[in-house]
Amino acid sequence: MKDKRIAKLVALAAAAVVSATALTAVAQQPAEPGAPTTDVKSPEAQFRGAPYSMSGEEMHRADDPKMPAMTQAEFDRARQIYFERCAGCHGVLRKGATGKALTPDITLERGTEYLKTFIAYGSPAGMPNWLTSGDFDEATVDLMARYVQHTPPTPPEFSLEDMEKTRKEYIPVAERPTKKMNKYNIENIFSVTLRDDGTIALIDGDTKEIINIVKTGYAVHISRMGANGRYLYVIGRDARVNLIDLWMEKPDNVAEIKVGLEARSIETSKFKGWEDKIAIAGTYWPPQFVLMDGDTLKPRKVVGTRGMDIDNVYHPEPRVAAIVSSHEKPEFLVNAKETGKIWMVDYTDLTNLKMTKIATSKFLHDGGFDSTQRYFLTAANSSNQIVVIDTKKSKLEAIIDVGKIPHPGRGANFKHPKFGPVWATSGLGDESIAIIGTDPKGHKSNAWKVVQTLEGQGGGSLFIKTHPKSNNLWVDTTLNPDPKLSQSVAVFDIRDLTKAPQIIDIAACANIKDDGAKRVVQPEYNKAGDEVWFSVWSAKDKQSAIVVVDDKTRTCKTVLDDKRLVTPTGKFNVYNTQHDVY
Amino acid sequence: MKDKRIAKLVALAAAAVVSATALTAVAQQPAEPGAPTTDVKSPEAQFRGAPYSMSGEEMHRADDPKMPAMTQAEFDRARQIYFERCAGCHGVLRKGATGKALTPDITLERGTEYLKTFIAYGSPAGMPNWLTSGDFDEATVDLMARYVQHTPPTPPEFSLEDMEKTRKEYIPVAERPTKKMNKYNIENIFSVTLRDDGTIALIDGDTKEIINIVKTGYAVHISRMGANGRYLYVIGRDARVNLIDLWMEKPDNVAEIKVGLEARSIETSKFKGWEDKIAIAGTYWPPQFVLMDGDTLKPRKVVGTRGMDIDNVYHPEPRVAAIVSSHEKPEFLVNAKETGKIWMVDYTDLTNLKMTKIATSKFLHDGGFDSTQRYFLTAANSSNQIVVIDTKKSKLEAIIDVGKIPHPGRGANFKHPKFGPVWATSGLGDESIAIIGTDPKGHKSNAWKVVQTLEGQGGGSLFIKTHPKSNNLWVDTTLNPDPKLSQSVAVFDIRDLTKAPQIIDIAACANIKDDGAKRVVQPEYNKAGDEVWFSVWSAKDKQSAIVVVDDKTRTCKTVLDDKRLVTPTGKFNVYNTQHDVY
Repeated sequence: MKDKRIAKLVALAAAAVVSATALTAVAQQPAEPGAPTTDVKSPEAQFRGAPYSMSGEEMHRADDPKMPAMTQAEFDRARQIYFERCAGCHGVLRKGATGKALTPDITLERGTEYLKTFIAYGSPAGMPNWLTSGDFDEATVDLMARYVQHTPPTPPEFSLEDMEKTRKEYIPVAERPTKKMNKYNIENIFSVTLRDDGTIALIDGDTKEIINIVKTGYAVHISRMGANGRYLYVIGRDARVNLIDLWMEKPDNVAEIKVGLEARSIETSKFKGWEDKIAIAGTYWPPQFVLMDGDTLKPRKVVGTRGMDIDNVYHPEPRVAAIVSSHEKPEFLVNAKETGKIWMVDYTDLTNLKMTKIATSKFLHDGGFDSTQRYFLTAANSSNQIVVIDTKKSKLEAIIDVGKIPHPGRGANFKHPKFGPVWATSGLGDESIAIIGTDPKGHKSNAWKVVQTLEGQGGGSLFIKTHPKSNNLWVDTTLNPDPKLSQSVAVFDIRDLTKAPQIIDIAACANIKDDGAKRVVQPEYNKAGDEVWFSVWSAKDKQSAIVVVDDKTRTCKTVLDDKRLVTPTGKFNVYNTQHDVY
Repeated sequence: MKDKRIAKLVALAAAAVVSATALTAVAQQPAEPGAPTTDVKSPEAQFRGAPYSMSGEEMHRADDPKMPAMTQAEFDRARQIYFERCAGCHGVLRKGATGKALTPDITLERGTEYLKTFIAYGSPAGMPNWLTSGDFDEATVDLMARYVQHTPPTPPEFSLEDMEKTRKEYIPVAERPTKKMNKYNIENIFSVTLRDDGTIALIDGDTKEIINIVKTGYAVHISRMGANGRYLYVIGRDARVNLIDLWMEKPDNVAEIKVGLEARSIETSKFKGWEDKIAIAGTYWPPQFVLMDGDTLKPRKVVGTRGMDIDNVYHPEPRVAAIVSSHEKPEFLVNAKETGKIWMVDYTDLTNLKMTKIATSKFLHDGGFDSTQRYFLTAANSSNQIVVIDTKKSKLEAIIDVGKIPHPGRGANFKHPKFGPVWATSGLGDESIAIIGTDPKGHKSNAWKVVQTLEGQGGGSLFIKTHPKSNNLWVDTTLNPDPKLSQSVAVFDIRDLTKAPQIIDIAACANIKDDGAKRVVQPEYNKAGDEVWFSVWSAKDKQSAIVVVDDKTRTCKTVLDDKRLVTPTGKFNVYNTQHDVY
């Protein structure tokens, strides 16, 4: 009976969508590679304890006698695993977000056996199958099932001083080049996340040669280009920020800082007169963001995001998701995920810090601008909504219902043959692609409405992309459990969106012989808009590749399969990132 | 040897200043009177537990075996006492503020005997002498010494919904008078806090008759008049807010709400076009403030103050101290005490809430406007500084070093014969009275400087006051341990501040026969500016009084000694409060 139920769960899971953070699972990466960037006395080191240490067999002190017994060593090990594998969805304090709440009042009622089943086999709602995926062994499943019934330990705060201690200026500003010292066409360089390698690859988009593999934080979440087209800012999930100077003969790190324990977002000031003066990084833990000098990463101001959600209820862990830089004002837009608030942060005066906190919809995640760059469209993903902010008025413009768990990346802007300027998002939760009118002046009746819904290949889509010079709209299905879908992409013809999309087997183009997952992720255009780059992403010990597709003919053009391209995921073209072209 | 040390401590304490919150001690009030305003299921009731309940003898579960044994019943009782007597200075989370930090890492090292000595006999730094004052018996001293070595329990949050549940509209707006229904000269009514009675007295300033004794929260901290001169807003330390309609035939409560567990501040919108549309109340716990409809107290928006202090370090409990309403913009100024930040909160759009967080100096407390009402001057009391905010530019204007622990109330504005417009503050920590130039246009070189320091009677001053029509500057010394000083006031002649002040024995005027403390507190002018009212304040079971002094002759004119005037402290003249005249 029980086996039958589990079998059903597994079947459901196979047919269902896993969340974006399940990337952790599917890529099967080991613990964080590379040398730690903090010394052993840092708040993080203290919190994480001695990972996997078996020293001491004293029991962990439970807050409730009903909590299952654990040794302190087991507890410490589980805390480390939870932080690396579970916190992304369930939250450091286990209050839930993309994943369910896992506080002891809930978990104790479920009990160890029930929890073990979920951890082992996952669930249709997006919980990864940690046992059957091979990530955890039986003992680890048991360990984690017991751990989540204990009171979550609160990780330490991370002050400006803590950050400053980790900062390194590899090349001081005075010693950096005063002009471009290389012959690269900088505007067509791609910064490619090598997820499990703790690096990014800088790839020459013209020659397809690797310029440099630059050491960064672990699993770089995004690369953002400075407004001046020189500095590249990247941030790892471990909250390590790297500043890379593309003017150097061999572009490389010039500065680095660790801004917290877990992070997703980095941005730089883009308003006229303020270009790259201020950088901002947002952290998942602690729940805060930091404003830094753009050229040295020297931290200047830390702002906590703890506070009330849109229902006026206190939230202890509002994680900072996407951050974008306004083109209309000297402001950053900061998504405070769990509270459903978007903070517009004026960066012109850090002593008298002006902010507008806009109440929108809960679980804010990623987003991008419309084609005029006045409006910011962002996913409130577990609310199945897109929120629109007018960056000129610093006000909420609209909230739009879309399909399940929208995940636009930065979305895709194009001119719809019937509805005029639109922005599109795909999603994690279903196959729908929402096309939203974005022209309140020229197409008022369509503005901020879903004017058309396309049917993609399936759920599990992470990214959608087009380019002003292209007629193609590309949609990946990276996290779809069906390999046929996860290894291929759908491409729609913008000129006639009534036509079914063409399905292109990108993984096949890569011609990889091993049995890796070969998940196809994130279409990214080159500067000219005539090539689309896709990552073909397998685990660290398997062959991965980047496939370059000719946009016009929709045929594979080049395969980049250099052995150094370990687990490539996100790719960021300098020009398109710098100018918010998407 | 030990006795000698204690004797010395006691002697020092007797010569020293106790903090404003030691009022709790000197007034010897019992537990909170009156019916509770929340039902038994409220977050507060749950946190406070069953006070003084002896049910159950199970042991309290300590976080550390070194913590002294307590039964759960003892712990619950101590938690209640701590909240009522200790949290005001030491903070709910015991992180320290006016009082020292009392977290177990510190208290465990001190040990029970050491702590008992301090609790019993107080300290020169302002710790009250709880045993010798008669407030605690030996057993309670022992209980509290053990309690503070345990991990502080975190009190519950208090959401908008929690607040709304406590709200009462005694008289709905539609049923209230549409014009003034009484013959009182409303502008000269005084709202007088009857501290230990859980009421305020409305006193007719012309006839000196008591109009009504209105049921309010416990130990009303301030009364604020609405901009329209009709509604009176009062807030108790227990965070109960009452709205009193002075247009009623017999002015009384028309609405009420409880906005948290502990509070100090209330204010109403004063900017042109927004008069009394929005009320704001700030709480010590939870660390937050709430914006409400001005006529019904319906809560509309809650904003948490947790976040970074001026050193960019996270503070979990930034309590909301003084709040004032800008005359230059539709903004409230909110003192977030421990962080040293003043939040300017724009109340025109609660969905897109604009705020400016100004980094100033830590431990912000009370303050008031300069005579032009453009600048807000406020004490950063444990920093021994006065902070000046330009409300027109929403910016920090200056930070000025003054004497020890400035405590201006709202301060005193007058025209100095030599230095032009000035604002003055006395203080808790020493006898100095700082006179600060406030006229950057006419007297630029004096602006935001201490232009003169007067020598008052001694430390322990709570309030200083003058009036535009007066030549007198009155300074109390309420908390000075010497009864001669605490029962008298100093009055300076503004026309010649080189002259020593006259000392007037106000308590003697009251002609009280019993042996009460008769502390003289808070000079308050009538509307005409020709009378100054003083409270002569004794414990609840002793006779108190209000003494009205003729300002011109500096002689006692009238004594209000109605038996209903139990423990009178703060007095708020309607006109002066409404128009920020001080």
